[in-house]
Amino acid sequence: MASYLLAINCGSSSIKGKLYGIPKSPSDPLDSQASLEVVNIGSTDEKVKIKITWEGDKGENLEEEGKNGDEVDYESLIPFLLDHLSSSAVNLKTDDIKYVTHRIVHGGAHTKGIIVTKEHEEALEEMDKLSEFAPLHNHHAVVAVRSCLDALPHHTSLMVFDTLFHASIPEEVYTYALPPPDRELVMPLRKYGFHGLSYASIVQSISQHLDKEPKDINLVVAHLGSGASACCIKNGESIDTTMGLTPLEGLIGGTRSGTIDPTAIFHLTANPAEGVDFKDYTVSKAEILLNKKSGLSALAGTINFGTIISRLSFTSGCTKEEHERAVLAYKAYLDRLMNYISQYLFKLLSTSSIDKIDGLVFSGGIGEKGSKLREDVLNRLQWLGVELDKSKNDGKHTGKVTEITTEKSKLKAWVVETDEEGWSAKLARDEFGF
Amino acid sequence: MASYLLAINCGSSSIKGKLYGIPKSPSDPLDSQASLEVVNIGSTDEKVKIKITWEGDKGENLEEEGKNGDEVDYESLIPFLLDHLSSSAVNLKTDDIKYVTHRIVHGGAHTKGIIVTKEHEEALEEMDKLSEFAPLHNHHAVVAVRSCLDALPHHTSLMVFDTLFHASIPEEVYTYALPPPDRELVMPLRKYGFHGLSYASIVQSISQHLDKEPKDINLVVAHLGSGASACCIKNGESIDTTMGLTPLEGLIGGTRSGTIDPTAIFHLTANPAEGVDFKDYTVSKAEILLNKKSGLSALAGTINFGTIISRLSFTSGCTKEEHERAVLAYKAYLDRLMNYISQYLFKLLSTSSIDKIDGLVFSGGIGEKGSKLREDVLNRLQWLGVELDKSKNDGKHTGKVTEITTEKSKLKAWVVETDEEGWSAKLARDEFGF
Repeated sequence: MASYLLAINCGSSSIKGKLYGIPKSPSDPLDSQASLEVVNIGSTDEKVKIKITWEGDKGENLEEEGKNGDEVDYESLIPFLLDHLSSSAVNLKTDDIKYVTHRIVHGGAHTKGIIVTKEHEEALEEMDKLSEFAPLHNHHAVVAVRSCLDALPHHTSLMVFDTLFHASIPEEVYTYALPPPDRELVMPLRKYGFHGLSYASIVQSISQHLDKEPKDINLVVAHLGSGASACCIKNGESIDTTMGLTPLEGLIGGTRSGTIDPTAIFHLTANPAEGVDFKDYTVSKAEILLNKKSGLSALAGTINFGTIISRLSFTSGCTKEEHERAVLAYKAYLDRLMNYISQYLFKLLSTSSIDKIDGLVFSGGIGEKGSKLREDVLNRLQWLGVELDKSKNDGKHTGKVTEITTEKSKLKAWVVETDEEGWSAKLARDEFGF
Repeated sequence: MASYLLAINCGSSSIKGKLYGIPKSPSDPLDSQASLEVVNIGSTDEKVKIKITWEGDKGENLEEEGKNGDEVDYESLIPFLLDHLSSSAVNLKTDDIKYVTHRIVHGGAHTKGIIVTKEHEEALEEMDKLSEFAPLHNHHAVVAVRSCLDALPHHTSLMVFDTLFHASIPEEVYTYALPPPDRELVMPLRKYGFHGLSYASIVQSISQHLDKEPKDINLVVAHLGSGASACCIKNGESIDTTMGLTPLEGLIGGTRSGTIDPTAIFHLTANPAEGVDFKDYTVSKAEILLNKKSGLSALAGTINFGTIISRLSFTSGCTKEEHERAVLAYKAYLDRLMNYISQYLFKLLSTSSIDKIDGLVFSGGIGEKGSKLREDVLNRLQWLGVELDKSKNDGKHTGKVTEITTEKSKLKAWVVETDEEGWSAKLARDEFGF
């Protein structure tokens, strides 16, 4: 009997997933079966779209619309997804899915994943506590874990956290200069960092590409998606990252402010601590405003980075105001990105020579597609001897790792396709030994 | 008849001041008369101390205790100070003080000082608005301006702002990625920056020291006092600084958190937006916690940087806990400082070669006294060719500007005594043409 692992990655209105066949020997690679994507979950004016792409002839590729977005919630999602998966497969019984990994954003101070089964009530409680602390970031994933436990009663879930990779950050870097809280908290108020599954997968990709041990990898990585962060990686480990207690701190995101004066929110609105209903749970007005109403959306009126780039040219058919807002948004985004890239390059350069640094990595949707952004960043590094290869940077990237600097460049730069699901699956193999 | 200018600099529990004689010709330098200092204002367990130091034989130096700190408030302070000044002077009638400058922290978007006289009610209203927006930072100074108008009815006051020097910061740097506020504000929510009088005086000192025009000066300056900030100066102008909408953002201060995740405060305490009484006015609990209860004080249990440095060595007679807290506080302080110094050096290096950068300046109490801190910073810049001169760094600094790097160093570093009162007086001369 074949057995499978399903890696689930819940976003704020989407689910991505990958199905892997489990090989007979732990030393063989996982056998990739299919990629899944569900979008528009919760949307009031669009239908849920589901896309399943099978490897080779393992199933029939699907691309279809389901119910309206607001009729499908995260609770009903796993049965919905499993139905589509088994109906399009040549040979898959959902009971054969023995393991599910769930990417969960906030894992607090946990340094490894948490196993959840129908019988493990204590793990569910732990999960609830984490969810309570960071509802905006963990809520959907936690709902998906519960939905999985109902739909697949005999499987084992592993919750893997975006915070795990940053457990190596030194105390002086993760410590905030704050007094003790006036109430009991489930986790200390400190920098945790996020996008850790992505960073770990990038270290692995660069390590394989360069045929070096992960412990010898030194990188500055910018993971730029609708959420954006950067990470300083020394000897294969995170030593600093831009996101903090929550994913809000650091870089400007699609709808996130990034770092601002911590008292700004008290001037922006009269009652920032007031609880407001957000979908099916309650969070503070401040968290909604800073995480959902700020960022590129507030500056440019769109979170689409491609649209912003096209509006930088006034000939793109946009209005004068749209053009001016796009220019400001782009320049502010680049300014904040350069600040962190410089900090992290300096951190590495103050203890290693430049030839020990493997380079600068761009990843995530904006990192992979944003050739102008990469060019502007690398041009600001010319003084370090960085030399962009314009044709490689502008060309199509094939494969996981694409170099975009010239042979002569003193520091390399790369575009790397991240693989959060693949890394989640690897963590499950390490945990369960299959 | 002689006429005088008094430059007043109100801190949170102190006043510093300088008295200058106004020369006959606007091209002659101001004639420095005396330095004044009042400390322990508002203190419940210490007496107010007043110190007046006259130049040469212009008066009799004074060092005496007054009433208890809590019996002397900022309202009664100017008559108190003027009494002491005239009683110790050889020849000073307080009516001869024709101009007073007041250093005020927050000037919002104002790009020049504001004149206040008994007859200028509109300027007082403007002042009140500014004070309302940033009570924690402007309040004492505003009380001092009112007290001056009563004590010296015929003088003209010029309020000069710490924000003025940062008016040159580009829009993409000062813009926060925030949505519009839900109410009318007297000033936009953006980065303003502070310590501007200090930065302006440092540019002038380095310009005189190097015999270069201010417009050719490129520096990274760290002003490290109980409030700490850094500034990137290009062509004599501020192009970036660490403090933001308020002095809270950026570096760790004596009692300030510096940059943290903007939602951390909502977890630290249940009602951060609640108004609490602070001395004789009301501010939000968040502003008190983050500005008055955080920083080195929260990390190390003391704001005294000298004490923290001595506790780095376990032989200093402190407890194990004090030692460990001091080590963490120092390392966190250095980490944050390095982050901003790196950003700003990078900003300069991405558009100028290293020989066009005049250097790195340390100023403020911690910057002037902290030889270990300076050494640790400069050692992290060795890869740029920076070479510390240990004997100059450890030695006594005489004069305004002391170089602390070797002849061979590719980038110079300096300790500079800042002169906020001198710069305030210069702004008054420019304004009134005397």
